[in-house]
Amino acid sequence: MTGALLTDLYQLTMLQAYYDSGMNASASFEFFVRNLPAQRNFLMAAGLEEVLAYLQGLRFEEEELGWLAASGRFSAAFLRSLEDLRFTGDVWAMPEGTVFFADEPILRVTAPMREAQLVESRVINLLHYETLVASKAARCVLAAPGKVLVDFGLRRAHAGEAGLLSARASYLAGFSGTATVQAGMEYGIPVYGTMAHSYVQAYDDEAQAFEHFARSQPGVTTLLIDTYDTEAAARKVVELANRLAADGIRIKAVRIDSGDLGEHARQVRAILDAGGVEEIGIFASGGLDENQVRDVLRSGAPIEGFGIGTRMNTSADAPFLDCAYKLVEYAGLPRRKRSEGKATWPGRKQVFRHFGADGAMARDTLGLHDERGAGKPLLELVMAGGRREIAAPGLEAGRGHGRWQLAALPARLRALDAAEPYDVEVSVALKTLARQVDTRSGAVAGTTPA
Amino acid sequence: MTGALLTDLYQLTMLQAYYDSGMNASASFEFFVRNLPAQRNFLMAAGLEEVLAYLQGLRFEEEELGWLAASGRFSAAFLRSLEDLRFTGDVWAMPEGTVFFADEPILRVTAPMREAQLVESRVINLLHYETLVASKAARCVLAAPGKVLVDFGLRRAHAGEAGLLSARASYLAGFSGTATVQAGMEYGIPVYGTMAHSYVQAYDDEAQAFEHFARSQPGVTTLLIDTYDTEAAARKVVELANRLAADGIRIKAVRIDSGDLGEHARQVRAILDAGGVEEIGIFASGGLDENQVRDVLRSGAPIEGFGIGTRMNTSADAPFLDCAYKLVEYAGLPRRKRSEGKATWPGRKQVFRHFGADGAMARDTLGLHDERGAGKPLLELVMAGGRREIAAPGLEAGRGHGRWQLAALPARLRALDAAEPYDVEVSVALKTLARQVDTRSGAVAGTTPA
Repeated sequence: MTGALLTDLYQLTMLQAYYDSGMNASASFEFFVRNLPAQRNFLMAAGLEEVLAYLQGLRFEEEELGWLAASGRFSAAFLRSLEDLRFTGDVWAMPEGTVFFADEPILRVTAPMREAQLVESRVINLLHYETLVASKAARCVLAAPGKVLVDFGLRRAHAGEAGLLSARASYLAGFSGTATVQAGMEYGIPVYGTMAHSYVQAYDDEAQAFEHFARSQPGVTTLLIDTYDTEAAARKVVELANRLAADGIRIKAVRIDSGDLGEHARQVRAILDAGGVEEIGIFASGGLDENQVRDVLRSGAPIEGFGIGTRMNTSADAPFLDCAYKLVEYAGLPRRKRSEGKATWPGRKQVFRHFGADGAMARDTLGLHDERGAGKPLLELVMAGGRREIAAPGLEAGRGHGRWQLAALPARLRALDAAEPYDVEVSVALKTLARQVDTRSGAVAGTTPA
Repeated sequence: MTGALLTDLYQLTMLQAYYDSGMNASASFEFFVRNLPAQRNFLMAAGLEEVLAYLQGLRFEEEELGWLAASGRFSAAFLRSLEDLRFTGDVWAMPEGTVFFADEPILRVTAPMREAQLVESRVINLLHYETLVASKAARCVLAAPGKVLVDFGLRRAHAGEAGLLSARASYLAGFSGTATVQAGMEYGIPVYGTMAHSYVQAYDDEAQAFEHFARSQPGVTTLLIDTYDTEAAARKVVELANRLAADGIRIKAVRIDSGDLGEHARQVRAILDAGGVEEIGIFASGGLDENQVRDVLRSGAPIEGFGIGTRMNTSADAPFLDCAYKLVEYAGLPRRKRSEGKATWPGRKQVFRHFGADGAMARDTLGLHDERGAGKPLLELVMAGGRREIAAPGLEAGRGHGRWQLAALPARLRALDAAEPYDVEVSVALKTLARQVDTRSGAVAGTTPA
């Protein structure tokens, strides 16, 4: 999945053209989001680890070079130059879990032009998706303080890699774990599992299905109780739990996956409590997102945990971010594009964050990379000369950082509804640079980024 | 990406429980979509080839079994049983490219219970995503008859596998090709490429950027003309094209990626024609979907082709389908779940399609698998005993089938706006079976699927 050909054709035709012109000076590209979706008060950076692994492993295999040669689009000399191509550049980035806003770069690649250009497609592909999911998952975390949240979304994630990376990104954002086994093996994320309706259906008797499952998974059993009649099944669970207790077997929880989750939870809670099994928890799932979780909890529903799938893994209310990876400097000269509605800030940049006396985020300044001034700089050098500058902090560290970031958000941005936007100001030095760049390239007035 | 652990934990805990109970009789599961999104008049089946490849390759690797053992959730005897697990079942399916509707199964797996259950997560993961994209891409094809449509969406597809599979699914639905190089290598899809804004920005002079690129890619050059001023750039293209003609070098097209595409296309067309380069085509891109393509073509814009990315690859207006893979028969007995709002039709089923005298689709009947009656049965046996029953028809065959399917759609369903739904009736025999199943399992009345 990390092949060098997982890129757009134009990257390779541009590389051929650069090769023909002998152009390979140092280029800086920055990844940023142009505008936040209307339903997002902030975004959370994720995907950096996968990007760095991709950059470190970048190389063209013989089979890939053979395919490119057979396409007839490239010169033999150029293809030979690809044989030894490795990523040798520097990367500055915000640590995973960092909260950020529109126009703020979260990653900068500085490398010989051909390397920096080639990696564009996959760098965006990874950063965009993990950031999209982490940002959505963070909202779920804010909506359900103290609750167990589990990623249930492999099946309707957009193919396999999205299933794995959304398990990772949601855990980074504060989820408790995932149902996806491979994500447990690859990332060390806690893996949760219950049972499916098919298991209950395969038996002629629901109570028998429950008992076989509880005996097979003693102590960790979560029984799915909505296949036929939720409250009737809860009564079967009471009978079973009391009977199994004699054998020292405990049922951990029941899961409700359909109907009015809050109402069913209240009725089931009453049945379980009346039956003397107060220790059995209630877990809910079924097409949930952060808004439904908030609403059901506000109604006082006695639910300990939620399985959140499709709508989180696909970021269903905002399934993409308006992001870009744009050239900001080439051969020592700052650059920018001025396409209508898509103009960008030139030059290598840094984001400086200012905090209030209470420790909460107050405002950010988008400035030049080497600007001095107040505020904590958010972009750090993470790769130099193609090698990691610091050891990978790891997913747990990113998760801890993310938790701290959410705690430092201004209260209005922690709400799910659209809030007054966070203040991101542009430094005087950056505005001056933009004017200079436009003057140098004969700019048309009126195309400064909004 | 096709590891056996790319599944939900509950599949494995259910397998352990089935193992403990000695349950492994033949089970049939069907994949279907419960409801069409409001913005879809039909869906197009896709992803079958990937599902069959997954089933054929299914096995647990030693490392995976070691990880499961270390998790402490499974018995040693059960894990040993997984060592030899292979998929040995039958698969019935609609051919890729087939148009289908709510409640119609497009795939049925019949296999020993443990095999049929284990594969659920990945089967849904593949079928859901490719069907989602093919259905969206088919709408783009209907909106732009005779135009070149190219998948531009790798970067914002949800990670890498989605990038590859959306190239495949959109080509199946009638796109001309993709920008994703690896999809060209893996699936033989035609690969298209132009140039990026960064290429123009890297030069101090736009005209020089155009010339270098045109000389590097003679005959196949598409120049991106909206980095600074679209019409000014078009005039530079005229000058360049006429000059390069002396060297026998041809410019194929220009691309516009921002602003009012229709208006720019008209102005650029006039500039190119006035400059004597009528043969240079106009290609448009930039956040497009089928509605925008339809509107810009209706306005009479002189555009030969479109790059369609993010909104197609993420199916942005409907980023998931309400689909399921449900147990319909176990140990010879038809089954169904009756969860609120999610009840399903029991038993192995077949879809029979009826055509009008004009060859257009008239209505479908959802019936029992072995029912006899009028109409063309859509589900075919594609795998028997774990082996493909027929050779893979291939992507080109699926694409041809898809084209035929779109041509046979009733005219109202070819429109982009929501139309009167297609008529899918349920056979008397199936309704009777549902009642029998409910009676057998002590059903509550009133939970028949809508």
